[in-house]
Amino acid sequence: MINKKLLFKKRPYGLPDENTWELTEEKLPDLLEGEILIEHEYISLDPAMRGWMNEARSYIKPIEIGEVMRAGSVGKVIQKSGKTKFKIGDHVSGWGGVQTHCISNGENLIKVDPLKSNLSTYLGVLGMPGMTAYFGILEEAKIKEGDVVLVSGAAGAVGSLVGQIAKIKGCTVVGIAGGEKKCNYIKDNLGFDNSIDYKKGNVIKEIKKKCPNGIDVYFDNVGGEILDAALIFLRRNARVILCGAISQYNNKESIKGPKNYLSLLVNRASIKGMIVFDYVHKYEKAISEISGWIEEGKITVNEDIYEGIDNFRSIFLKLFNGDKMGKLILKIKPK
Amino acid sequence: MINKKLLFKKRPYGLPDENTWELTEEKLPDLLEGEILIEHEYISLDPAMRGWMNEARSYIKPIEIGEVMRAGSVGKVIQKSGKTKFKIGDHVSGWGGVQTHCISNGENLIKVDPLKSNLSTYLGVLGMPGMTAYFGILEEAKIKEGDVVLVSGAAGAVGSLVGQIAKIKGCTVVGIAGGEKKCNYIKDNLGFDNSIDYKKGNVIKEIKKKCPNGIDVYFDNVGGEILDAALIFLRRNARVILCGAISQYNNKESIKGPKNYLSLLVNRASIKGMIVFDYVHKYEKAISEISGWIEEGKITVNEDIYEGIDNFRSIFLKLFNGDKMGKLILKIKPK
Repeated sequence: MINKKLLFKKRPYGLPDENTWELTEEKLPDLLEGEILIEHEYISLDPAMRGWMNEARSYIKPIEIGEVMRAGSVGKVIQKSGKTKFKIGDHVSGWGGVQTHCISNGENLIKVDPLKSNLSTYLGVLGMPGMTAYFGILEEAKIKEGDVVLVSGAAGAVGSLVGQIAKIKGCTVVGIAGGEKKCNYIKDNLGFDNSIDYKKGNVIKEIKKKCPNGIDVYFDNVGGEILDAALIFLRRNARVILCGAISQYNNKESIKGPKNYLSLLVNRASIKGMIVFDYVHKYEKAISEISGWIEEGKITVNEDIYEGIDNFRSIFLKLFNGDKMGKLILKIKPK
Repeated sequence: MINKKLLFKKRPYGLPDENTWELTEEKLPDLLEGEILIEHEYISLDPAMRGWMNEARSYIKPIEIGEVMRAGSVGKVIQKSGKTKFKIGDHVSGWGGVQTHCISNGENLIKVDPLKSNLSTYLGVLGMPGMTAYFGILEEAKIKEGDVVLVSGAAGAVGSLVGQIAKIKGCTVVGIAGGEKKCNYIKDNLGFDNSIDYKKGNVIKEIKKKCPNGIDVYFDNVGGEILDAALIFLRRNARVILCGAISQYNNKESIKGPKNYLSLLVNRASIKGMIVFDYVHKYEKAISEISGWIEEGKITVNEDIYEGIDNFRSIFLKLFNGDKMGKLILKIKPK
């Protein structure tokens, strides 16, 4: 059987280009005792992947040159050899990488149920971005009823769920997103109280207008000038959760620090970084609670699915050019 | 009776100059029923005073033009009228301001005991800087035995106590200070494990050398480039306590944000601002514990006392030019 896989060839400086990856094919080897063969259905595209491509020390080891591009995946077990953790026909989610198939000994795989949720959703609100939003807003930001929550990247995979969970918990939620379409979407479809279009007008003035009493929580997915603007409006004991900094990931210039950071001092506020992997032992509880909210109609799933491993690069770049809505997913298995 | 008082005349831009204050004299009015007259012995000089001179919204209202310059003070009750909270001969500490005498109704004054500690010490380790260090390192940074603690402004009023308390609690303590004299002092007299002279050599390289395994707590009194350098070396779950930013208080340029702030994300670390006034209800307990440490010889009191209200400005500037060791105090009452 042939596996089509995307190899990581060259660390990018700035945005990935045509030299960053190479798509190749290989004949899959025979399975060893205990191994399974997974046919990938969907691959997750996440901003964090850009960070893993850098050589620098981080919270996870960098992807090595020559390796299959690391990515979250969901697929079906189609072959097995001997005594295995999963059986043929099982659906599993894991770190299969950007390829059509993946051989695994079953380690770090989770069985998922395609009858309970669409398979793609195990990469979205029931996957890494969902867990990030859930633990970020509940356990890191510790929101309380009545809090004013500002979230950037509000139409994105993490931000859209952060805002919806904060609404469930009785907060006032204002989302920052790029463009009228996204801004309308988060208000009309996701139930945010208000939106700010960072591409239109002055973000500082807009925050002032839409959060007239300041903010208790700023959930930051973007960094840069928007983080700096949010700091101005922190209320006493405000919490800034640093979840990502998408504006900085492909930056070729030196990163600009948030010059309004002394607002933290005056307001006894904090900025705290989070990494979702620290919560792995609690994922099950989160998945169960989010699934319940979906069933009750309290959470709208917001996925943007594109097709074809051949189109990986152009679709990956949608993470950074704003050209997508919600969780970005690549469908790998042809219909 | 004549009161000599320093009036705040003009908000400074950058460092205070000869137009910032005006020293005047007044004949004190007669006391009203319930009032006491305090003769000041010492005035506290603290970096925070520079912040109070700005017009901007802050954690405390700005000093108004024409008011007596706000400052912590300690003195003796020398007159009273009718039924009063304190009696003649009592020593009290409060916010008397930069003047030789102060009339008060007793509100916000604390009785202090000159037999237990030198009066000046009620402005230092038993006063605002002491409380800042105590609650900052214990309740905000939540140090544990074995933590590596880096503190800037380490020979200053707050930093010198932060380091000593961290040593009592079993931490490894490295202090950053300006000049060989201060660096030797914090090692030889205050028991710090190591020191870094920010005026000599590269602070990033020095932190790397002296905290080879990174830092768990950075207690920041200075801001600017030293904060940025410290961020590089945060360990997992590190805590940065933002207590002050003395490098920025007289800055005429726009403040530079800490460009290495994404280290917070990778290391699940936090920056948190603190204001000591939030702990007023616990001061008594802190004063009692610190007094105990002084008696046991575990804390060295580190005060730099100058004389004369006429010299206020030149002595105040020592806060910012590095020309002092430990807590800066102005003796007001002539011998």
